[in-house]
Amino acid sequence: MPCYRITIEYDGRDLVGWQRQKNGPSVQQHIEEAIFDFCGEEVRIQGAGRTDAGVHALGQVANFALTSNRKPQVVMNALNQHLKPAPIAILECEEVGEEFCARFSAIKWHYLYRIINRRAPLTVDAGLAWLVKRELDADAMNEAAQILIGRHDFTSFRAAACQAKSPMRTLERLVVERKGEEIQVRASAISFLHNQVRSMVGSLSLVGTGQWAREDLAAALEVKDRQRAGPNAPPYGLYLTRVDYD
Amino acid sequence: MPCYRITIEYDGRDLVGWQRQKNGPSVQQHIEEAIFDFCGEEVRIQGAGRTDAGVHALGQVANFALTSNRKPQVVMNALNQHLKPAPIAILECEEVGEEFCARFSAIKWHYLYRIINRRAPLTVDAGLAWLVKRELDADAMNEAAQILIGRHDFTSFRAAACQAKSPMRTLERLVVERKGEEIQVRASAISFLHNQVRSMVGSLSLVGTGQWAREDLAAALEVKDRQRAGPNAPPYGLYLTRVDYD
Repeated sequence: MPCYRITIEYDGRDLVGWQRQKNGPSVQQHIEEAIFDFCGEEVRIQGAGRTDAGVHALGQVANFALTSNRKPQVVMNALNQHLKPAPIAILECEEVGEEFCARFSAIKWHYLYRIINRRAPLTVDAGLAWLVKRELDADAMNEAAQILIGRHDFTSFRAAACQAKSPMRTLERLVVERKGEEIQVRASAISFLHNQVRSMVGSLSLVGTGQWAREDLAAALEVKDRQRAGPNAPPYGLYLTRVDYD
Repeated sequence: MPCYRITIEYDGRDLVGWQRQKNGPSVQQHIEEAIFDFCGEEVRIQGAGRTDAGVHALGQVANFALTSNRKPQVVMNALNQHLKPAPIAILECEEVGEEFCARFSAIKWHYLYRIINRRAPLTVDAGLAWLVKRELDADAMNEAAQILIGRHDFTSFRAAACQAKSPMRTLERLVVERKGEEIQVRASAISFLHNQVRSMVGSLSLVGTGQWAREDLAAALEVKDRQRAGPNAPPYGLYLTRVDYD
């Protein structure tokens, strides 16, 4: 059976997230239906990560197998055709070996979190970034972020619903950079806990406004208590930008 | 009477353009209604430029006068409050002299045109950029663009409905730059004809695909005939980014 790996971009605003849900259309459901519409095969696709409702992706990855052999380019074009008008696009499609699993073969994850720091409401970026009206010190946020780099127990920065067995994670990169009124937070790790990026960004925003000192972030990490971290940053500022494989 | 100058950002997707129309909500109408809702004054605002339906602005400018004195910051916050949920935001508000006119005091205009050059449909950028599926050579586009720099008769690149008395315009800057799959065209001039930027971008896209040589663009300019320019690029890739004043 030919196996395919697809790279997916989506606007999460009107989606209930990656995984099939009863309360609305998910990315997974849209793509599985597009595959069925295209070739009549009922497949279950495996996504690299289950992004939450409202979260966007510029480079989500998934894999699936078909019974009949089709060229990757044909699969990609047909899926894009059948996905319309859903805000989901297949950017790449390639054949992979049967052993490839988008989730378990992943070796590194990359996220971007977009903050717009200004008083005026958002227009073109509405639903695509988090509006923070209080002035944020991006340099202070970036400096504090470095506390979280390395291997730690990230219990304070995980969702209550997080299903990972261990709260230990190795954060490779957490960079905060201001570009005009936009503040971009880029995070990379071998794996993340559920809501970890949004939780870290929420806490960093407290550092940015001056409500927290660098030491408060260190203390929140140290205490291993979800109640002690800042509130989660909203989902619509978060982008899964890339997943790396060997 | 206190006079105010406001800087405005909007997402043009669901708007009929700057100017009041019978067929739907315009930026002008939304802002005039917000002023009325805020202070009960029925004013007519003067915009720097009349952007078409679907065109966005990151820095449109307008002016108006009120009978009662109010602090610019108060005006700005009140307008943003009353503009909700329209995709329009007031970024700045300041008091100006009575002689200030957003349209006639303007000394330079700046536009950005966003092209996404890829095969896959747009998701997060849908309605915010022009999707061009054929591969574009941005360097060739940029080289050809320099033909249009300077003072020319831009008859070939103006709308049939253009009301300007003279087709002579001085184009100061037209730069085409690729950033990954995005191609940005930046145009600056003392003034533009109606649809001039979209028309220039449409013609440059023909150069980008190789359908036109550099010489074809020169010939289109030379012949002073609207039928000879390429098709207009669609409105939703265009952004009025800034208007300069003395």
